[in-house]
Amino acid sequence: MGLLTEKQVVAQLKAAKSWARIGDEIRRTFVYEDFVRAMGFVQSVALLAEKMNHHPDIDIRWNKVILALSTHSAGGLTEKDFALAKQINALP
Amino acid sequence: MGLLTEKQVVAQLKAAKSWARIGDEIRRTFVYEDFVRAMGFVQSVALLAEKMNHHPDIDIRWNKVILALSTHSAGGLTEKDFALAKQINALP
Repeated sequence: MGLLTEKQVVAQLKAAKSWARIGDEIRRTFVYEDFVRAMGFVQSVALLAEKMNHHPDIDIRWNKVILALSTHSAGGLTEKDFALAKQINALP
Repeated sequence: MGLLTEKQVVAQLKAAKSWARIGDEIRRTFVYEDFVRAMGFVQSVALLAEKMNHHPDIDIRWNKVILALSTHSAGGLTEKDFALAKQINALP
C-alpha cells in the first residue's frame, strides 16, 4: 500500500466529508446524544475496521468519538485510510 | 460525591492494582492479543460504566486500551472512580 501524493491526499480529502488532515493522519469527531449511542457507533466502526484489517485510533469521551486514521506501516496516508473513512461516513 | 482527601487517594490506589495516578485522574493501560480481544474488553467496560453512570475516557490503539477515570463534576477523584476501577480490574 503506497503513500498518497500530496495532490492525491488533497483530492481524497474533498471526498471524505468532515475529515480533517492533521499531520500524517486524518481525523473526525462524531458527537452523539449519549454514551450508549456513541458506543453503538464505536461497535460499528470496529466491525468495519476488523473486516478491512485497518484500525483507526479511537478515543471515546462519553458522547464523543474521535477517530484518527493513518497507515503506520507506510508512514502516512494511503488509499486504505480514505476507503475506511468513507465507509465510516456511510454508517447510519 | 465528595472529593477524596490526599490520604484517601493514597489508600485507594494501593487497593486499585495497576492504576496510576496522573494529575486529577487514575489511568491503566490494558494490552490484549489483538483488536478483537481489546474491543471485547471495551464492550465489558462500557456495560459497567453505563450501569454505574460513570464513564471513563477510553483510548483504543489496536490491541491496547487506555482508561482514565476522574469525577469531572467534583473536579477530581472520588470513591466512584475507584469503585469502577476495581470492577474493571475484576473483569476476566
